[in-house]
Amino acid sequence: MRVLVLGGDGYLGWPTACRFSARGEEVMVVDNFLRRRMHLELGSESLTPIRSLHERVNAWQEASGKSISVRVGDINDWNFMSRVVQEFEPETIIHYAEQPSAPYSMIDRDHAVSTQANNVLGTLNVLFAIRDFVPNCHLVKLGTMGEYGTPNIDIEEGFIEISHNGRSDLLPFPKQPGSLYHLSKVHDSHNIMFGCRVWGLRSTDLNQGVVYGIETLETSQDERVINRFDYDECFGTALNRFCVQAVIGHPLTVFGKGGQTRGFLNIRDTIQCVELTTDNPPAASEYRVFNQFTEQFSVAALADLVARAGTEVGLRVQLGHIDDPRVEKEEHYYNAKHTRLLDLGLRPHILSEELVESLLVTIQKHRSRIRGEATIPRIRWRPEPSKAAEVERRVST
Amino acid sequence: MRVLVLGGDGYLGWPTACRFSARGEEVMVVDNFLRRRMHLELGSESLTPIRSLHERVNAWQEASGKSISVRVGDINDWNFMSRVVQEFEPETIIHYAEQPSAPYSMIDRDHAVSTQANNVLGTLNVLFAIRDFVPNCHLVKLGTMGEYGTPNIDIEEGFIEISHNGRSDLLPFPKQPGSLYHLSKVHDSHNIMFGCRVWGLRSTDLNQGVVYGIETLETSQDERVINRFDYDECFGTALNRFCVQAVIGHPLTVFGKGGQTRGFLNIRDTIQCVELTTDNPPAASEYRVFNQFTEQFSVAALADLVARAGTEVGLRVQLGHIDDPRVEKEEHYYNAKHTRLLDLGLRPHILSEELVESLLVTIQKHRSRIRGEATIPRIRWRPEPSKAAEVERRVST
Repeated sequence: MRVLVLGGDGYLGWPTACRFSARGEEVMVVDNFLRRRMHLELGSESLTPIRSLHERVNAWQEASGKSISVRVGDINDWNFMSRVVQEFEPETIIHYAEQPSAPYSMIDRDHAVSTQANNVLGTLNVLFAIRDFVPNCHLVKLGTMGEYGTPNIDIEEGFIEISHNGRSDLLPFPKQPGSLYHLSKVHDSHNIMFGCRVWGLRSTDLNQGVVYGIETLETSQDERVINRFDYDECFGTALNRFCVQAVIGHPLTVFGKGGQTRGFLNIRDTIQCVELTTDNPPAASEYRVFNQFTEQFSVAALADLVARAGTEVGLRVQLGHIDDPRVEKEEHYYNAKHTRLLDLGLRPHILSEELVESLLVTIQKHRSRIRGEATIPRIRWRPEPSKAAEVERRVST
Repeated sequence: MRVLVLGGDGYLGWPTACRFSARGEEVMVVDNFLRRRMHLELGSESLTPIRSLHERVNAWQEASGKSISVRVGDINDWNFMSRVVQEFEPETIIHYAEQPSAPYSMIDRDHAVSTQANNVLGTLNVLFAIRDFVPNCHLVKLGTMGEYGTPNIDIEEGFIEISHNGRSDLLPFPKQPGSLYHLSKVHDSHNIMFGCRVWGLRSTDLNQGVVYGIETLETSQDERVINRFDYDECFGTALNRFCVQAVIGHPLTVFGKGGQTRGFLNIRDTIQCVELTTDNPPAASEYRVFNQFTEQFSVAALADLVARAGTEVGLRVQLGHIDDPRVEKEEHYYNAKHTRLLDLGLRPHILSEELVESLLVTIQKHRSRIRGEATIPRIRWRPEPSKAAEVERRVST
């Protein structure tokens, strides 16, 4: 199978490319290095010392005997995008090529507009490229559980049967996203749904929870193909960030009451979910949504888990409560369905104290590279003029 | 009150500016002439011989003794947009500055991407300008009833109480828009809702039905301030287009079965609704949605009405059924609530045979300017390669 991985240099894209390559698929990776450029802008960096994409691909070939093709360019550049799709004729496109950070989208107007332009217009290009050149291609699109927000009812997988005034219909689940980044994913979902309905495209929208972990089977084979691992306020997800704080003895930055509950999954399960999705494509015209996570946790429960695991490996972990920089409910009902990937055969890696311990051990190996202040949230959903100016200064220096 | 009308040179923007000016409000109009440029591109034109914006404003001053300020520029240009808002400090912004045509957005990739870029990113700029410079300003945003699509349940005004598995919540009404233009309005709605919730902005999203009619009280006072009237496939709405076809003896182009049912309103009621909305602003942080239409009709019923009225004024009107160029249900349930504007005092102008007759008489006055072929739909939601090429040729010549 020809698999095109958009955003194939990223945290999820690179291990995905390696997995499909290891399986013997024909893999092409597209990236414009937006992620690496954003780190340059913000002064942050992957904890793990990742190589350039070209080095990674060469090392992968040496280690595995398999080649991955690379095209460097921007999916927002139609000339580039249409050429790549015509040349490679993918049967599956796995689309990670988006600005993936909620805080980054909330820095200021420029970052908000560039996030929505990059994500929404880039995905439109993907839809048109499929429509015009590879209409049977399966688009596997990474969305987010954050599209749903935290409604006071159970969250279904994409659609909900609504009965109202004696009639009923199966309708898209109402969306209440929590940042301008999350909004861009909601816009994508609506555009993709339209492409399936009107043009007969086939797509799976993976509404993914918060990913944790570093390594996957393939990226741990050789230190030159190691995966990136971010712990900064923009790109570090909650558990990853807490683990880094535990290692350097910084109080874990629990936002507000810590009752914010979300779906989480191990990066190994991200790869497994994307494989299962790709191996079981939807019909023509079908737009389906899988909620891609394995367990729900509150932020406070995660912090407790890290504290226990940290103690186990000899760290002294403190919990630190800080004002929530986001605008979100700090306590709420949360029950999201996630059976469709289990039905396809997903076997979850459950988050255990042992798993956190092994994560802490890996982080300790790279301890000298940690910049502790990068974990502190400074971007606020409701900037006061002085805070906005501070962010502005930090970003521009 | 200082009222900033974005898109103030358009079909709805110009009469809105005149109305608020006539009331004695301080009015500033912003336009980048996107609408006039799209007509240049497509080779179409307003049936009524409208003057340039500068001539209109001068004529309005002579006729009414009142001045309207003009700023020519693009709301997508943040430098321009932020300067205008800081300078004028509007208390109300009425936002019509969007690409308003579904068929135009479906011509090809370029037109789809430019529509969503223009509308979604432009509205983001409006939100940031309000947040940063005039946080108490009321944003009156023109959305469309087309955001809802045609669900099999009653359509509520923006939000619906959903009961599910023993719990319930008031959630955004699920959206199933029917074109890439309609999608851009759905994206706007989500972004604006977020701006209200997170930044405390106040906004009314007017989900408007299909507007018909030409003149309003102010724009009929002097032929130099006459309103534009479009009848072409991109910018002519159903009833307006049927009336033009009736005048030139062209069979009315009913799409498919003609059972497509929508909400409609007279342009005089558009102006009345925008006034009522402006005079009754929402609270801080409030995002409210009004369904802005007065009556529901099927396309077939509209065509019959035009046929009857045409006969009355001596025209021979034929009905012509053509394949639906859109992808939509040709027969469906449709019942949309629209009580909130009535509760504020809206007194609808009902669509009668007499009203259609007067519209036909006005159109006959400008008969020599009609290009009949412009009313024929050639843009298809599902382009065949040959059709796509034809549109491409027509657009590029």
